[in-house]
Amino acid sequence: MSAPGTTPASAGSTAALFWDGRLLSILDQTLLPFEERWLELSDGDEVAAALRRLAVRGAPLIGIASAYGMAMAATHTDSEEELRAAAERLRAARPTAANLGWAVDRVLAAALAASRSERGASARAEAQALHAEEDAAGAAVGARGADLLEAAGAERLLTHCNTGVLACGARGSALGVVAALAERRPVSVLTCETRPLLQGARLTVWELRRLGLPHELIVDSAAAGLIRRGEVDAVVVGFDRAAAAAAGIPFVVAGPTSSIDGKLASGDDIVIEERDPDEVRQAGGAPLTLSDTPCRNPAFDVTPAGLVGALVTEVGVARPVTRKTVAALLR
Amino acid sequence: MSAPGTTPASAGSTAALFWDGRLLSILDQTLLPFEERWLELSDGDEVAAALRRLAVRGAPLIGIASAYGMAMAATHTDSEEELRAAAERLRAARPTAANLGWAVDRVLAAALAASRSERGASARAEAQALHAEEDAAGAAVGARGADLLEAAGAERLLTHCNTGVLACGARGSALGVVAALAERRPVSVLTCETRPLLQGARLTVWELRRLGLPHELIVDSAAAGLIRRGEVDAVVVGFDRAAAAAAGIPFVVAGPTSSIDGKLASGDDIVIEERDPDEVRQAGGAPLTLSDTPCRNPAFDVTPAGLVGALVTEVGVARPVTRKTVAALLR
Repeated sequence: MSAPGTTPASAGSTAALFWDGRLLSILDQTLLPFEERWLELSDGDEVAAALRRLAVRGAPLIGIASAYGMAMAATHTDSEEELRAAAERLRAARPTAANLGWAVDRVLAAALAASRSERGASARAEAQALHAEEDAAGAAVGARGADLLEAAGAERLLTHCNTGVLACGARGSALGVVAALAERRPVSVLTCETRPLLQGARLTVWELRRLGLPHELIVDSAAAGLIRRGEVDAVVVGFDRAAAAAAGIPFVVAGPTSSIDGKLASGDDIVIEERDPDEVRQAGGAPLTLSDTPCRNPAFDVTPAGLVGALVTEVGVARPVTRKTVAALLR
Repeated sequence: MSAPGTTPASAGSTAALFWDGRLLSILDQTLLPFEERWLELSDGDEVAAALRRLAVRGAPLIGIASAYGMAMAATHTDSEEELRAAAERLRAARPTAANLGWAVDRVLAAALAASRSERGASARAEAQALHAEEDAAGAAVGARGADLLEAAGAERLLTHCNTGVLACGARGSALGVVAALAERRPVSVLTCETRPLLQGARLTVWELRRLGLPHELIVDSAAAGLIRRGEVDAVVVGFDRAAAAAAGIPFVVAGPTSSIDGKLASGDDIVIEERDPDEVRQAGGAPLTLSDTPCRNPAFDVTPAGLVGALVTEVGVARPVTRKTVAALLR
């Protein structure tokens, strides 16, 4: 990994990673919002290390970064054995991220399908194609979601976690909907801090400032009360916020179809990852409680489908959200 | 204020303050759970200072401490003018705490009703009577709540914020229910950290450890998911948790009748205090976001009465919670 650099001039004002055809530059997300430092990665193992320490995060962005990691591996070797080993090291970086394995496998297959002399070029082309597809999906999600919220007259939005360019490439999923709507009408955004890892306080605040959108940070448990007091026109998330349905305002979940698991019959079948208890014991590096306090740390929440007003994807909108309307999107 | 001392031997194992007939010792809650330091206060102004910096907090405990503050003032002077001035300085310490004005006025009235030579003794007797009444109310709330939860077969409880001896004297309100139930059957407690001020992570964890009860700390937004997954038998709070009603488990709100405002027609009439945005920007002293990030920081939440399963007080239980059943408690 090269020494930390400044923002690449051609990376655009919001991109979280930048591919110059040979090297991958990433914005180190562990330092946001306090410092914007770009890292230049030159092979698959450097990408794996960046994934491991969460310098790059967000399922779609993990997929894009690992695709380029595989492309750089195929630039350095044309040996099938070495390529498979590099893929394995990338996959192991974040074993639970589905997009990682999918992207690595796709670029590896493209490399191995080419003649040995063409492996590097073929892998690089495939990674760029995957990146372009993800960007296009993000743009389509943003436009469809903005259509829906514009029709509902929503201006005061509430979001949770980080679902913008730092998670997804292009313009993001739920935060991409916010950005697209903001190009059409004035909006303001309440952003939940998102304990324990504070993606809202650290990353969404940084993105909203870059977008120049009025925003206010709240603790997660303040969301329901503000919704109930009529201060929110719509909730736009990738994650669960159940109070919205009770308050009768639009509750929109936005993301690409690649995030829909057609094999699961019900959200109750989703295995909820339990993460490190130190995430709960600490915040921003400061201890909040005794170091041996027992903790539960479920990393995800399941929103009952009946509470979701609309599921926005790049190929269409499911509304209401039922097995039938979601299956129709995947056809 | 005298130098920090060690735990008074006669203060009992869980009391947050101790009156020896002359001086008031308080456990400095700003240092919990990391350090247990007792402070000895010798007059009303020292109590006011302790209230201001939140060394003593929790509405009923604020009332008890300020009653003793007023008693110490009446020990030092029998001048009505000086007593009224001391009362004013105590009231100003936490202008929004209703219990403070109520307790100060009650002890001041007792002092002024006595002959000059009896003012100190009368004030001390009134403060001790007030303290004893608050303790008795807490014990009754605990027993009634435990009756209700025992009948429901609840063992795995979830609570929010701090409603124990650090907030209320005696055994507390909602956490007093937990303590009373624990004397009858094995219980375990999930405690929400309670952002932004972390009363759960700091104070409830400390209390549960002192009580020797199995407990686990969670972030506030993990509560709904754990309830939905069937991991909680009942929710016991002084504050709002709306998911419980949706999950069909008992949602019990516990506290003394002195916390019921008979003048308010609806919870929507409650004015919600907005507190310092730095509470949201920081946790445990660490910065979580940019120092100029705009924030909203509503300090309270209003639970729709229809979502509350039972309101437990020292004089009885309102179930269901309607205008009629609550009015019957106040008669």
